[in-house]
Amino acid sequence: MKFFKVRVIVMPREGLLDPQGKTVEQSLKKLGFKGLSDVRMGKVISLKMAAENRSKVEDAVKDMCRKLLANPVTEDYFIEID
Amino acid sequence: MKFFKVRVIVMPREGLLDPQGKTVEQSLKKLGFKGLSDVRMGKVISLKMAAENRSKVEDAVKDMCRKLLANPVTEDYFIEID
Repeated sequence: MKFFKVRVIVMPREGLLDPQGKTVEQSLKKLGFKGLSDVRMGKVISLKMAAENRSKVEDAVKDMCRKLLANPVTEDYFIEID
Repeated sequence: MKFFKVRVIVMPREGLLDPQGKTVEQSLKKLGFKGLSDVRMGKVISLKMAAENRSKVEDAVKDMCRKLLANPVTEDYFIEID
């Protein structure tokens, strides 16, 4: 058994409305920040996992994304394993 | 002017309670996932920024974190610039 550090990033799918991101963008502009565009807001889930190897971790984490962490219709996820 | 892609990760500070992360951990365990620990949940903000150089982007984004994106008492932030 080894320990792996995993980070999952869940973002609203490209092209879909992202009201949280829009609000943050407007607030940043009101605060005076210039040159900004495409502000989008998502979630990060970090976790540690004990498993035999990296590929088992990857399979398990993809399964977590499908079952709980991401909405398959509106969100994309990216998995980083350390 | 160049365009930079920026990702800011905002996590609950190490050692502080993270009720969202705890809930996700419990749900994942109920779904049958094994070997998990330290599940923590944070936010990601991605954005594009036009600026003269990388160091101007870094300064601006740090300023955004202090002023809006992160709570300095309870959260830590990590900035990735592409």
